[in-house]
Amino acid sequence: MSGMSAGPQPQTRKSDVDRETDRLARALLSRITEPGDLALAQLLSRYSASEIVEDLRTGRLTTKAATHWQARLPHAHPEADLAAIVRLGGRFLVPGDDEWPEVLDDLVHIGGGYAAPPLGLWVWGQPHLADLARRGVAVVGSRDATPYGVYVATELARELAERGWCVVSGAAYGIDGAAHRGALVGGGPTVAVLAGGVDVPYPRGHVSLLARIRESGLIVSEWPPGSAPMRYRFLVRNRVIAALTRGTVVVEAAARSGSLNTANRARELGRHVMAVPGPVTSALSAGSNALLREPDVVCVTGAAEVLELVGPLGTSAESEQVGPMRPRDQLDPLATRVLDAVPVRRAAGPASIAVAAGLAVSDVLRALGTLAAGGFVERIDDGWRVVR
Amino acid sequence: MSGMSAGPQPQTRKSDVDRETDRLARALLSRITEPGDLALAQLLSRYSASEIVEDLRTGRLTTKAATHWQARLPHAHPEADLAAIVRLGGRFLVPGDDEWPEVLDDLVHIGGGYAAPPLGLWVWGQPHLADLARRGVAVVGSRDATPYGVYVATELARELAERGWCVVSGAAYGIDGAAHRGALVGGGPTVAVLAGGVDVPYPRGHVSLLARIRESGLIVSEWPPGSAPMRYRFLVRNRVIAALTRGTVVVEAAARSGSLNTANRARELGRHVMAVPGPVTSALSAGSNALLREPDVVCVTGAAEVLELVGPLGTSAESEQVGPMRPRDQLDPLATRVLDAVPVRRAAGPASIAVAAGLAVSDVLRALGTLAAGGFVERIDDGWRVVR
Repeated sequence: MSGMSAGPQPQTRKSDVDRETDRLARALLSRITEPGDLALAQLLSRYSASEIVEDLRTGRLTTKAATHWQARLPHAHPEADLAAIVRLGGRFLVPGDDEWPEVLDDLVHIGGGYAAPPLGLWVWGQPHLADLARRGVAVVGSRDATPYGVYVATELARELAERGWCVVSGAAYGIDGAAHRGALVGGGPTVAVLAGGVDVPYPRGHVSLLARIRESGLIVSEWPPGSAPMRYRFLVRNRVIAALTRGTVVVEAAARSGSLNTANRARELGRHVMAVPGPVTSALSAGSNALLREPDVVCVTGAAEVLELVGPLGTSAESEQVGPMRPRDQLDPLATRVLDAVPVRRAAGPASIAVAAGLAVSDVLRALGTLAAGGFVERIDDGWRVVR
Repeated sequence: MSGMSAGPQPQTRKSDVDRETDRLARALLSRITEPGDLALAQLLSRYSASEIVEDLRTGRLTTKAATHWQARLPHAHPEADLAAIVRLGGRFLVPGDDEWPEVLDDLVHIGGGYAAPPLGLWVWGQPHLADLARRGVAVVGSRDATPYGVYVATELARELAERGWCVVSGAAYGIDGAAHRGALVGGGPTVAVLAGGVDVPYPRGHVSLLARIRESGLIVSEWPPGSAPMRYRFLVRNRVIAALTRGTVVVEAAARSGSLNTANRARELGRHVMAVPGPVTSALSAGSNALLREPDVVCVTGAAEVLELVGPLGTSAESEQVGPMRPRDQLDPLATRVLDAVPVRRAAGPASIAVAAGLAVSDVLRALGTLAAGGFVERIDDGWRVVR
């Protein structure tokens, strides 16, 4: 462990650590670090959260990142944070919990500064998060939505909810809010992933919408209660929206909308990326229409076309239920055929895999999404290879 | 020659027949047959038009199709038709004429009942048709267009014309008319391909538009002067719009718009197929948005994106100028690389060719369009192979 003068022995495994000790340690780390911190993710791949906290407290962890974390240590009160979330009627989920969505682990495979899975998730509401994630579809778009975008997002989300799917979004004004509202109208639970504490309703105009969301669905955040939704946190948050769902639909997005960032994370995660066409005369459709020009983005005009791609609820959901490294023989025939065609060493592009498998590229892309979600394949640069 | 008791000898080649005799014979056949007639196309691949006319007149041609043609013979006055087009200030172009667009020969490769190239084209206007075809882009769509569609078609055509491209369309109400008008505003010649005689303005409300079109551009038809634009003729006509251009842009099309038929012909011809996104709430965008869901259709939001695909005017235009079977060494490097990867016997799909060439599928599709237009490759079922 570089920079640690006398660190814990690597043979001390995470699995040996008591779950609640781990939860407390992660709650503390959640307070003193920022989500998406790759330095922390690397430490966590080798040491337990408790070990890292112990080394921080004793000053044995001397990396540059650790210095920043240590500065926040005096202000961290993880017991108080855990008590606060329980008082709200919520919980702090950590990896290993039954409710932890294992699909979040896919985040270790993506590029850029977004590769770190959440340390834990602060959750407010009744439903089982992993269950909702299994039938999750992200519906996102611009805050400055037009009546057209709001209408389409509402109707799309309503239909998805009516068919048993869970709409995941970011609770922002515009498309996000319309998506949550449509899901509620459709009678389905919906998940709002916030960029601040679950008890810090943001935007303020959505106080009552957020209250309605957690009556039947969930409010989820990587930040502990009371955290402010700062600007830079939104982009980091978007990777969770993408990871919690089988696909992301961009309904109406301006050229530099944050929702395009969610679409990019979804693509990196091997999830389906969809966009709803809009008038080329509308600047607020420029981003979503630009997405439609990318070869792996599917044009969708309604819920049926979304479900054609991410559904049906039965089969694929079961594939994901078992989590990473589930036995190959439980895969559906298409996925098995594609998996056989994915190389083990050097990564291959979808077109090349399609030829090897004797399948259409569109089928291969769909299967790769399932295989990536199941931990069978990983994306390296522009290609895919088998996870060993 | 089946059904011909004592037909002409096949060694009598078309090239030996005097051009004007051929023109007269084709003018006659143009009056007694319908364009797209595969029986006639097959005869023309083996015999000259004059030979076929002679055999029809003498009753030696006894196929079922010939019976129908013969019934019209007494009403055919090709000299009068040729005189009529000349009186208008037009001409009747036939294969071999300098002005004949050799890209029309690509039509022999497409499927269904549309495989026959035109016998000839009745043309009214000044510009050189083959020159215009080299820089042709089809802009088509629904007759019942919305203000959105009309605006987009007008602006797109204007920009294409301003950049030196020739907008080709069908002169119908709605999108077609807007496309021609936009091209005229942009100062470019535009080509209207009609489903009746060039002297039969259709629709009637476009009398003055058609007059303006032929002031700087061309009115083109497969039917001789005076022919009525009957309903079934529009679909046959569409193949000419597709063949005369490097790509077809569908601007706004309802679910069963005839413009989707033009897009299909363009695809079969290896031309670029593009669609402009529109509101999913508009039934008049249902067809164009559905096109965007097809993997080989490119979403375009403006002229720059159209030209990104079909342009630039320089290089590719030169590839097409020489016509089919031009020397390989005049191809651009990308096309050469793709041609090397296209199999000679069994056809291969673009994905497979992309792997063989080590190129992106999008590049391969672009190059295949150029190669098909140049007569180097042909589409067989779902794949491509080298033309021998």
